[in-house]
Amino acid sequence: MAHTGTYSRCLQVWFSLVVVSVPLEQVEGVWPLPQQIHQSADRYSLSPQLFSFTYGKDSAAQAGCSVLDAAFKRYFSIIFPDFTKGAENGLHYLWPEPKPFVVSVSVKSRGCDGYPDEDSDESYNLSVSNGQAVLRSVTVWGSLRGLESFSQLVYQDDYGSYFLNKTEIVDFPRFAFRGLLLDTSRHYLPLHAILKNLDAMAYSKFNVFHWHIVDDPSFPYQSRTFPDLSNKGAFHPFTHIYTQSDVMRVIEHARMRGIRVVPEFDSPGHTQSWGKGQPDLLTPCYKGDVPSGSFGPVDPTVDTTYKFMERLLKEVKYVFPDSYVHLGGDEVSFACWQSNPNVRKFMEKMGFGKDFTKLESFYMESIMNMTAALNKTSIVWQDVFDYHERPRSKYVVEVWKQGCYLCEMRRVTKAGLKVILAAPFYLDLPIPTHSWARYYIVRPLAFRGTDEQKKLVIGGEVAMWGEYVDATNLTPRLWPRACAAAERLWSDEEKTLNADLAFPRLEEFRCQLLKRGIQAEPLFVGHCKHEYNGL
Amino acid sequence: MAHTGTYSRCLQVWFSLVVVSVPLEQVEGVWPLPQQIHQSADRYSLSPQLFSFTYGKDSAAQAGCSVLDAAFKRYFSIIFPDFTKGAENGLHYLWPEPKPFVVSVSVKSRGCDGYPDEDSDESYNLSVSNGQAVLRSVTVWGSLRGLESFSQLVYQDDYGSYFLNKTEIVDFPRFAFRGLLLDTSRHYLPLHAILKNLDAMAYSKFNVFHWHIVDDPSFPYQSRTFPDLSNKGAFHPFTHIYTQSDVMRVIEHARMRGIRVVPEFDSPGHTQSWGKGQPDLLTPCYKGDVPSGSFGPVDPTVDTTYKFMERLLKEVKYVFPDSYVHLGGDEVSFACWQSNPNVRKFMEKMGFGKDFTKLESFYMESIMNMTAALNKTSIVWQDVFDYHERPRSKYVVEVWKQGCYLCEMRRVTKAGLKVILAAPFYLDLPIPTHSWARYYIVRPLAFRGTDEQKKLVIGGEVAMWGEYVDATNLTPRLWPRACAAAERLWSDEEKTLNADLAFPRLEEFRCQLLKRGIQAEPLFVGHCKHEYNGL
Repeated sequence: MAHTGTYSRCLQVWFSLVVVSVPLEQVEGVWPLPQQIHQSADRYSLSPQLFSFTYGKDSAAQAGCSVLDAAFKRYFSIIFPDFTKGAENGLHYLWPEPKPFVVSVSVKSRGCDGYPDEDSDESYNLSVSNGQAVLRSVTVWGSLRGLESFSQLVYQDDYGSYFLNKTEIVDFPRFAFRGLLLDTSRHYLPLHAILKNLDAMAYSKFNVFHWHIVDDPSFPYQSRTFPDLSNKGAFHPFTHIYTQSDVMRVIEHARMRGIRVVPEFDSPGHTQSWGKGQPDLLTPCYKGDVPSGSFGPVDPTVDTTYKFMERLLKEVKYVFPDSYVHLGGDEVSFACWQSNPNVRKFMEKMGFGKDFTKLESFYMESIMNMTAALNKTSIVWQDVFDYHERPRSKYVVEVWKQGCYLCEMRRVTKAGLKVILAAPFYLDLPIPTHSWARYYIVRPLAFRGTDEQKKLVIGGEVAMWGEYVDATNLTPRLWPRACAAAERLWSDEEKTLNADLAFPRLEEFRCQLLKRGIQAEPLFVGHCKHEYNGL
Repeated sequence: MAHTGTYSRCLQVWFSLVVVSVPLEQVEGVWPLPQQIHQSADRYSLSPQLFSFTYGKDSAAQAGCSVLDAAFKRYFSIIFPDFTKGAENGLHYLWPEPKPFVVSVSVKSRGCDGYPDEDSDESYNLSVSNGQAVLRSVTVWGSLRGLESFSQLVYQDDYGSYFLNKTEIVDFPRFAFRGLLLDTSRHYLPLHAILKNLDAMAYSKFNVFHWHIVDDPSFPYQSRTFPDLSNKGAFHPFTHIYTQSDVMRVIEHARMRGIRVVPEFDSPGHTQSWGKGQPDLLTPCYKGDVPSGSFGPVDPTVDTTYKFMERLLKEVKYVFPDSYVHLGGDEVSFACWQSNPNVRKFMEKMGFGKDFTKLESFYMESIMNMTAALNKTSIVWQDVFDYHERPRSKYVVEVWKQGCYLCEMRRVTKAGLKVILAAPFYLDLPIPTHSWARYYIVRPLAFRGTDEQKKLVIGGEVAMWGEYVDATNLTPRLWPRACAAAERLWSDEEKTLNADLAFPRLEEFRCQLLKRGIQAEPLFVGHCKHEYNGL
C-alpha cells in the first residue's frame, strides 16, 4: 500500500546502489569531493587523549589566531563527540595501543582577524600519515576547509574506536562564490536557526550567507538610523527582530567558519514592510484621479527616496563588512507607478516615454552608484540586467528565473558582467522535496561562450525562500539537498556528474550531519548509526 | 526572485484571507470544528492559581481515575504554559481581579482502566459560563475530547492574561475510526518521536495509531516468541528495535489520550526482513530449475508458515489489547511464486489453475481465520478484497489505491464489508508538501450507495510512509497537514468544506501546536506569537 509506480522504480535504484555502497568503507568519504584525493587501506587509530592540533613551525598563524584556535576546539568536539560528552573511559584504547596523533596546520599569510572575501584563497593540501597529518594553506580560510575535510576522514568502528586512513588531498574550490540564501522576511527565523545553518554550511564548504532580510511581509532588521522600519515593519517589534547585536553575532559566527555575510536590501519592489515605518517612501497608487490608499514600489521620482537609500546604505556599509551588497531590483510591478500622475510626469520629463523599465533602470543605476561610492560591489537580480542589457557600470547579476537559465548566463557574461547562478537551486519550490539529484546534475558552465565568459561565472547559490519555511522545517528541507549543490559548486564536474555514484557518499555524509546535530532528512530507506534524537 | 506564477496566485488568496481572520478573535477557535459550537463576546478571565479541574458529584469516575487524573495534569500545563515554566509572578492578575474557575467533569460510565475501542462513545457536551465549565460525557474518552476542546478555548492577551469566552459545545465524531499510520520499518523512529506524535494526534482528536511495524527493509519489533526476527531483521539489533517495554509504553501513552494502537503485521508480501531471522518462511525464487538465492513473499504452501503465523498472532493478541489487527495483504508479487516448482505443484493440487490471486486469497483467508479464532477483527489492504470480491468472512478493508477510490468504497460496502479510507490521505507522497487543502476537500461518502452502505464507512486514515521520512522530518511533514484530514473525519462536512474559511482557523491552530512543542510547519507567510524554538 506504500508504493506507487514511482516508489517501485526508486526501490530498484536503491537496491542497485546498496551494492555500490558496501565495499567503500571511508574511501572518498569527503563531501564535497576534493579535487584530488588518494586514500589507501593503511589505517591509523586515534585516541582523543593523545590527539592534538598544532601550528606548523613555518606557519604565519600561531596560537592566538582567533579563527584557527576556535576551529581547533570545534573540530576536536566534532571528531570525538563521545569524548566531549564524557562517555570516554579509555577502555577502547587498550588495543590497538594508543599513539599520539598531531595535526599540524601551516598558513602562508596570517589574516586571522580579517573577513573572507571574493578573492580569498581557499585551497589547501592535506597529507595524513602515521601519527600525523600536515595541513597547508595560503590563508586561514583554506585551513578551515582542510580541517573540515580532515574531520570527515575520521570514523568509528563498532566498538567506538577512532580511525582514519592514509590520505593525500590537494583541494581548491571550483567557484569562489558558493552561496545560500535564507529569507527572514516571509517568516522570522530565530537567531539560533540561522547560526545552526551556518554550521551546516561550513560542513558542506558553502562560503556565502545571502541574508534576504527585506521583503513585503516583514522587515526584521533593527536599523540604528531608521528604527521605525522594524518597530512598525517587523511581525513584532521586540520578539521578531534582529538587533545590532544579533547581526554582529551572525557575522562573527560566519567569519569563524570562513563564511561571508551578504545582506540584501531589495528595492524598489518587495518593500511593503518599509512603507509602514517610512512614510512617503513608497509610491501612492491611484484609482483614477485619487489615491487608492494602497502603495506600490519605492517612489523613484522624489529626492527623499534617494536620501533615505543613501543613509540606509551607509549604515549597511558600517554594519556588514562584506564587499558585496545585494540590491535586489526584481519583480517590480509597474501598475502602481503607471497609475500615479507624478510618476507619469517624471517619465515625461526624463523622456522615458511609456517604458517603465527605463524608470526602474534609472532608479537602480542611482543606488548602484551610491553603492560604488561606498566602495561596495552591487549584486542584483537578473531583472536589472534584462531591462538594460548594456550596463553602464559593473555589477554582479544573479540569475534566478526558471526556463533557459543558461541562455541568460550566456547573455550576462557576453555583456562582460559577473554572474551567480541560483535558478536551478531553488530548494523551496513546491516540488518533491526529496529530489536531490536534480540539483546535483546542474552544469553551470554548459553554455556556448568564450573562456573569458566562463570565468565571469563566479558561482552559484541555493535559495530557500520563506513562503512555506520557518524554523520548524528549514533544516530538513535544506539538508542534505543543499549538499548536492555544494558539491556541484566546489568539486570537479567531470568527477561528480553521476548521481548514482554520489548517492551512497551523500547518504554517508547525511549521517555525519545527523551526528553533528543537523536535522538533515533521509534520502531514502535506510538508517544511520546515530539517528536524529533532538525532538 | 522568489515568486513563480503559483506563488503569486497563492499570495492573492492569502491577502484575501487575512481580512477574514482578523475579526474572529477566538470565535470557533476549536480544531476540528465541533458539531455545534456557540460562542458569545462575554469573556471571563482565568487565573492559574484559582483554576481547577474537578469531578462532578454525579460522575461515575472520581479521583483515582487514571485516564482523567493524568489528563487534568496534562491540560493544566497546556492551558497555562507560562505558569508551568515558573514564569508566573501573579502580577498579570491584579487586574482584572482574579476569580476562581472550576471545570467540572462528569462521566456516565467509569471505564478508567479500559482501552478505547471501535464502539467507544466519544461524544461530550461542554458549557462554559462565569466561573465554571461543565463537561459531560458518556465515557472517559469523551471527556478527553472535551478537555482538548476546552484547552483550545483559552487564549492570552498581549500582557499574558488568560481568557475564555462564554461557550456551548455539543460534539461527537462523524467517524469512529480516525487513524494515522506511521511506518517504522523503512526508517526507525525513536520512541520519543512516536510519543510526540501521539500527543499531536490527541490535539487533533485522532483516535487510532496504525503502527506499520513490518516491511521489507527492517523489522524493529522485538518478539518474545521469535527474537531472531529483530535480532537479524532490524537495522540494528539493539539500537533500532522496540522492546516489549517500549511497546507497552506506546500503548499506555496512547490509551491515556484515548488512542487505540492497531499494529500491522503485513504478509505475505513486504516481509523480506522476516526472512533473515526465520529461515524457510519465505518462498525461494527459482531461475529455471534451480533456486536463484533470492526470496519472495511468505511461502503459503507449507504448514510451517501457518504455524509461525499462528504463534506470532497469539503473541500479538497478548501484547496489543486492541480488538483490531492489521494483516496487510497488499502488493504481493507473483513472479517468485510462479518460478517455484513446489508452489506450482500446490496450485495444481488446489485447482487454482494459473490464478495466483487464488493462492493469495487462500493464504489471507487462513490467517484471517486464525485472527478470528483469537477474537480479533482483521483489517486488510484493499488488494485482498479486489482479488476475491465475495468475502467468506467479515473483515475491514482499507482503501489505499489512488484513482477512483470512491468506486472502490462503493464496491466494498456493497459487499457488506466495513471500510476505511486512506487513499486521499497519503501525506508522504512526493507532491508539494504544503498542499493541505487537497486533504481537506476529500468527501469520503460521496459515492452512490444506500444508507446502509454509508454506515459501513467507519472512517479514514492518514498514511505517513517512511521511504523519505524519519525523525528528522516526520513532524513538520505530518503537521499541520494531518489536521486537515482530522477535521474531515471528525466534523460536519457541510460546515467544513470551504478551505478558504478553514485557512485562518488552521493557521491559528498551527500556532497552538507550536506553543505545545509540536514542530508543525507553516501554511504560508506569517508568524506566530511563539515561534518554534526547539532546534
